Amino acid sequence: MSLGSPVNRTVGTSAAPPVGTALGVVAGAGRPGPSRIVAPMGDAVLDVGALAATRGGPHPELLGLPNLDGLLGAGRPAWREVVGWLSEQLADPDRLSGYLLPTLGVVPVLPFTVADYVDFFACEQHAANAGRIIRPSGEPLAPNWKHVPVGYHGRAGTVVVSGTPVIRPSGQRGPGDAGPSRALDVEAEVGYVLGCSDTAPGRPVPMDEALDHVFGVVLLNDWSARDIQAWESRPLGPLLGKSFATSISAWVTPLDELAAAWVEPPPRDPQPLPYLLGPTDRGLDLTMEIRLNGELVSTPPAADLYWTPAQLVTHLTSNGAPLRAGDLLGSGTVSGARREQRGCFLELSWGGSEPVALADGSSRAYLQDGDEVTITATAPARSGGRLSLGEVKGNVLPAL
Amino acid sequence: MSLGSPVNRTVGTSAAPPVGTALGVVAGAGRPGPSRIVAPMGDAVLDVGALAATRGGPHPELLGLPNLDGLLGAGRPAWREVVGWLSEQLADPDRLSGYLLPTLGVVPVLPFTVADYVDFFACEQHAANAGRIIRPSGEPLAPNWKHVPVGYHGRAGTVVVSGTPVIRPSGQRGPGDAGPSRALDVEAEVGYVLGCSDTAPGRPVPMDEALDHVFGVVLLNDWSARDIQAWESRPLGPLLGKSFATSISAWVTPLDELAAAWVEPPPRDPQPLPYLLGPTDRGLDLTMEIRLNGELVSTPPAADLYWTPAQLVTHLTSNGAPLRAGDLLGSGTVSGARREQRGCFLELSWGGSEPVALADGSSRAYLQDGDEVTITATAPARSGGRLSLGEVKGNVLPAL
Repeated sequence: MSLGSPVNRTVGTSAAPPVGTALGVVAGAGRPGPSRIVAPMGDAVLDVGALAATRGGPHPELLGLPNLDGLLGAGRPAWREVVGWLSEQLADPDRLSGYLLPTLGVVPVLPFTVADYVDFFACEQHAANAGRIIRPSGEPLAPNWKHVPVGYHGRAGTVVVSGTPVIRPSGQRGPGDAGPSRALDVEAEVGYVLGCSDTAPGRPVPMDEALDHVFGVVLLNDWSARDIQAWESRPLGPLLGKSFATSISAWVTPLDELAAAWVEPPPRDPQPLPYLLGPTDRGLDLTMEIRLNGELVSTPPAADLYWTPAQLVTHLTSNGAPLRAGDLLGSGTVSGARREQRGCFLELSWGGSEPVALADGSSRAYLQDGDEVTITATAPARSGGRLSLGEVKGNVLPAL
Repeated sequence: MSLGSPVNRTVGTSAAPPVGTALGVVAGAGRPGPSRIVAPMGDAVLDVGALAATRGGPHPELLGLPNLDGLLGAGRPAWREVVGWLSEQLADPDRLSGYLLPTLGVVPVLPFTVADYVDFFACEQHAANAGRIIRPSGEPLAPNWKHVPVGYHGRAGTVVVSGTPVIRPSGQRGPGDAGPSRALDVEAEVGYVLGCSDTAPGRPVPMDEALDHVFGVVLLNDWSARDIQAWESRPLGPLLGKSFATSISAWVTPLDELAAAWVEPPPRDPQPLPYLLGPTDRGLDLTMEIRLNGELVSTPPAADLYWTPAQLVTHLTSNGAPLRAGDLLGSGTVSGARREQRGCFLELSWGGSEPVALADGSSRAYLQDGDEVTITATAPARSGGRLSLGEVKGNVLPAL
């Protein structure tokens, strides 16, 4: 497991930006009892629940819980209070020494209970590249792509925290052919963690309310077995090619911490329908970095995402489906216009035909057993400069 | 809400079979406290938790919980004890009068917490009919269909108990076109309710263990908006065309109660891969009935399902994805070879081109506001004759 705080981030230079005000959950620390809510602080983590309980922090009854579920259900006013208070506390580290837990002594756990996990396909460059690779003679984008934020439900029960090893999945790769996947891939994504009260059935969330349902952001790796996915997906979409594991960062960065990161979305043609437009239609300027065994292989720009977080929330509820606190929305693979900005090996190796050359002389079409993939991201900080969103990391173990 | 016990089943003749030994959860009954686990018993429901606590029943700590989650996690030995004990109790109704709650005084609630909901496409007649309707000039079945039990994850958070009204969903019906669905449909399915301990990541459940993970069966209506589904589904499958509501029966019929209902599966050509074969590869002989506003419109035969429950469990875990107690697997629409056995209006009206004529002189391509759909099923009882699996019912309310 890996917290992705500066002490063990593979970004690894002294110039690496600090992890911003964020929340996670750890077990251990040589203390009895259940897991506890913590915040990153240099080489340690801050016991947020204990601090709130003894120093008059806001919502100690929520911050003292063993995960973020209670806080997610409390809504934006509570989130603002907590983030504001926590930022103040972190600015005065000398007063916090009694509340610090050494990173080495704790184990990050999944920071919230994932209710439903929906993975979108919100990046035009990724969707178009995938289309070109899979259907070289067809149109890159399906006819619906610029009208509908396309997505599917993933498996909530296999969302795991950063650092959890990923066992290479086996499955059907074609007619009569089964075995370990030969095309294990990553997808570098932004994950939006939903909170607020559960919404009412039948009532869509309009764009101007959509961001009140987004607590914060995680980094997400949607591990994918391309061979299994390709064979199974007609006509109902991916199942076993995705359902074996989805990793998220240990730290959830609250949206309020990303106030300086909002950017205008890319130009759209045609214009989306009116229910998907409004002042909240903005993207987040996260610069992501994908490392394979420590070597930087791509820098996907999340600002390029065609569909913005508010649009995903509004679209998902446009049929009246209610939301629950703990719903997790993935952006889909983030890819930029340039080759070195592609967010998965399917694109980086162009369907396996152009393996990625690595510094050690080897190359990769897809992942090998033993490979470690780390995705990090930075964003403009409210105070100027950039902040880190931590990391999502995973090692590939051989198929059982 | 509707329990589907004989007193309010629309099967409605005195010859209707009794609901078998089954478990559900109700709130109310003029008693304080949370919901409670009950069993159907004629015109009333039996307070199973109270009975177990005071009469020395098995696992009173599980049967006294507010839903079936604890029992689902306990595994087949516990399930066998509970079902055996409950069957004995129900056989001696004179001793139970102090534990009966009148059906009119209670409200059924969702009997368990749905972990992940996976909807399969396990019926050849349905898959082939859907193919013929959607791609009249193509092959009815996709090339993978007879090799892979095709399926997708649905929205666990919108699974509702029988009797919950369903609000007509709105959504995109085509380029630049949004509004209430004009093609609201039902899908009559068998739902398999999974239990047992959560399985370990990376370890597939083999066929010979698969049924130890199936606690029982519900009737399931996978409400579908065909116009929304058709426009959004390329290439990742259905999302909003399905995610607004999935209804399940209030009663969960334990697999042990269906011991006389096992039948050989249909012949397969080609043979499935070995991991999908074995003695547990058997289907359940449920005869389903779909009623629209009380009028029988179809009798889908679940014995015709091409992929069996053990195959669905084994396939779902074949990539190493763990199961959780409370996972719900839908069979997909059950359709027989004959027109009057088709399990959805897409097929019954052949894509809307042959509306279904009703006794009142009206007809339906798809559902109208105010329509009530009830799905019931019977199965061979262990004691001979047939038992009922209750019902799943829902009324269509206009779009908001």
